[in-house]
Amino acid sequence: MEENIRKLMGLLKPMKVNIRPHLKTTKSPILAQKLVDAGATGGCVAKLSEAEVMAEAGFDDLLITCEIVGPVKVRRLVELFRNHRKIQIVVDSEFGAVAVNKALSSSGIEQPIQVLIDLDVGLHRTGVAPESALALAQHISRLSYLKLIGIQGYEGHLQHVHGRETREAQCRASMAILTSTASILRKNGFDIQVVTTGGTGTAEFCATTPGITEVQPGSFIFMDSDYYNAVGGYFSQSLTVLSTVISKSGSEHRVTIDAGLKSLPTDSGFSEPKNMPGVTYTPMGDEHGWLSWDDGPDVPLGARVEMIPSHIDPTVNLHDCYYAHRKGVIEEIWPVATRGKVQ
Amino acid sequence: MEENIRKLMGLLKPMKVNIRPHLKTTKSPILAQKLVDAGATGGCVAKLSEAEVMAEAGFDDLLITCEIVGPVKVRRLVELFRNHRKIQIVVDSEFGAVAVNKALSSSGIEQPIQVLIDLDVGLHRTGVAPESALALAQHISRLSYLKLIGIQGYEGHLQHVHGRETREAQCRASMAILTSTASILRKNGFDIQVVTTGGTGTAEFCATTPGITEVQPGSFIFMDSDYYNAVGGYFSQSLTVLSTVISKSGSEHRVTIDAGLKSLPTDSGFSEPKNMPGVTYTPMGDEHGWLSWDDGPDVPLGARVEMIPSHIDPTVNLHDCYYAHRKGVIEEIWPVATRGKVQ
Repeated sequence: MEENIRKLMGLLKPMKVNIRPHLKTTKSPILAQKLVDAGATGGCVAKLSEAEVMAEAGFDDLLITCEIVGPVKVRRLVELFRNHRKIQIVVDSEFGAVAVNKALSSSGIEQPIQVLIDLDVGLHRTGVAPESALALAQHISRLSYLKLIGIQGYEGHLQHVHGRETREAQCRASMAILTSTASILRKNGFDIQVVTTGGTGTAEFCATTPGITEVQPGSFIFMDSDYYNAVGGYFSQSLTVLSTVISKSGSEHRVTIDAGLKSLPTDSGFSEPKNMPGVTYTPMGDEHGWLSWDDGPDVPLGARVEMIPSHIDPTVNLHDCYYAHRKGVIEEIWPVATRGKVQ
Repeated sequence: MEENIRKLMGLLKPMKVNIRPHLKTTKSPILAQKLVDAGATGGCVAKLSEAEVMAEAGFDDLLITCEIVGPVKVRRLVELFRNHRKIQIVVDSEFGAVAVNKALSSSGIEQPIQVLIDLDVGLHRTGVAPESALALAQHISRLSYLKLIGIQGYEGHLQHVHGRETREAQCRASMAILTSTASILRKNGFDIQVVTTGGTGTAEFCATTPGITEVQPGSFIFMDSDYYNAVGGYFSQSLTVLSTVISKSGSEHRVTIDAGLKSLPTDSGFSEPKNMPGVTYTPMGDEHGWLSWDDGPDVPLGARVEMIPSHIDPTVNLHDCYYAHRKGVIEEIWPVATRGKVQ
């Protein structure tokens, strides 16, 4: 893990961009601080409820990368902002901007909140269309409790594109949408200081695109087999889920481990046992999984097997804590503090 | 939810079996107690770590339905049993039985732990083969800190078989393996008091099979769309995940909600929005999902949408608490206390 952090900083720092790692991967203020100590500037979280926990733990230089919509969440945002003025948010609609502005206007807080326009650069998940960005900026400029500081455009659909050249070409095209929209806003008098984007699969391309000021990689710190298959082995698989062989019934070519759907998500394929070539994992319900092989090892009852996650973020979100080990000795235990914070 | 509990008890209590609901669904000692108040006798948990939390909360009439293997877990079992003597465990190997016996023999605890033989009745996940059950029973009888009280045989592969008649026929065949094995053990002098099995999809068939003493249904309390499609609407969908429409960018036939892979698991298909016919949910990463339609409603920004889980147990395991509401008013909040307890 430490090597992954060093590699990321070594790769991106010379490119003169802000590194604001996405903390939806680690869900840990302790790891957020380690990233800052290594050179990051603040962090990103996906949801308001993550920001609440991070800020409470003393880490509040945060960009919340999902839109905050609805009266309950807007009310919670105001209370968070009251004591944590560094919080940055994104908006992609007048509706969303007006609601936050109105709640702040009656809060007694005089300082405006820092806002980025969320731009759709091809993922089609959130974000205003490029042709509507200027109108949204003009609308925001009329809301006195919002201060427009930048623009976010996340190319999430490109993170796992196989083939470095293809991924780079598609990323450059997305970045052109983002930087040209930033230019239009600047030409119209808006002070766009922050242009933020990028994930583990694209950060180096984003960071070398003129006009991009900040990147948001997250998964690089632990990696997973899905990312590994797409972007290769520059970063190492630094997190595994430790399981135990609890049954050998039924077949000489199969054992049952105590890790199923509640330990290892399957949305991006099945996990793989570490250092067990020829051995395949199949989930067998919520609590169990099979390890099976044609010609393979004799895996004894009680053996402990490290499983490599297929998709790191939902995997971390299933577990209570990290056991940080070096040369086989556990040095620290870190809680997954924002686990379950999806609101 | 209360109606589901009443229906289950109304269905099974006249069949004169113990009802020991599986608490891997609810993960809540509060709900465990509600089930006992309604007529259940104790509960099941899948893992040792669940039992630890349940017992600590005062609910310790528990059968742990997964094998406990490996020195760390066996040590924790002994410490749990020290203060909670009702705990029952399963074994499917001499290896597992010997390890627990040895740890207990040096613990200073003189009372033996109650043990059930876990039998493979066709799921091939855990459980001793029927032809080896007698040898395992004989082995257990020589271990003075284990007291053999029964046999478990879970037909997990049949819970979701579509078609009531097919499911019943296959269940009866599995139950024949279980009850005939129990008979063989009894003929050989073993006092088999407990013959335990069954889930939401099969409990009524198990409960009417002569020789079955106990059933373990869990999902009936909340249901999910996968169970609903298999076993029909006798039980109601009593749990939904509340999401918010946070973006309307990109298409007139689509909105983005704030519920993705970290809120709604996909192992048994995608979730469905409640009371929105013609509207389809597609996960869009960890934190987002699309609702889309051909001809459909205008779903406004900020709208709150209830999502019906496709698979209830992993869904509950993703969330911090239940909001128990009646006629639109939240009456209680229950923590998902054994969330993440997969060890």
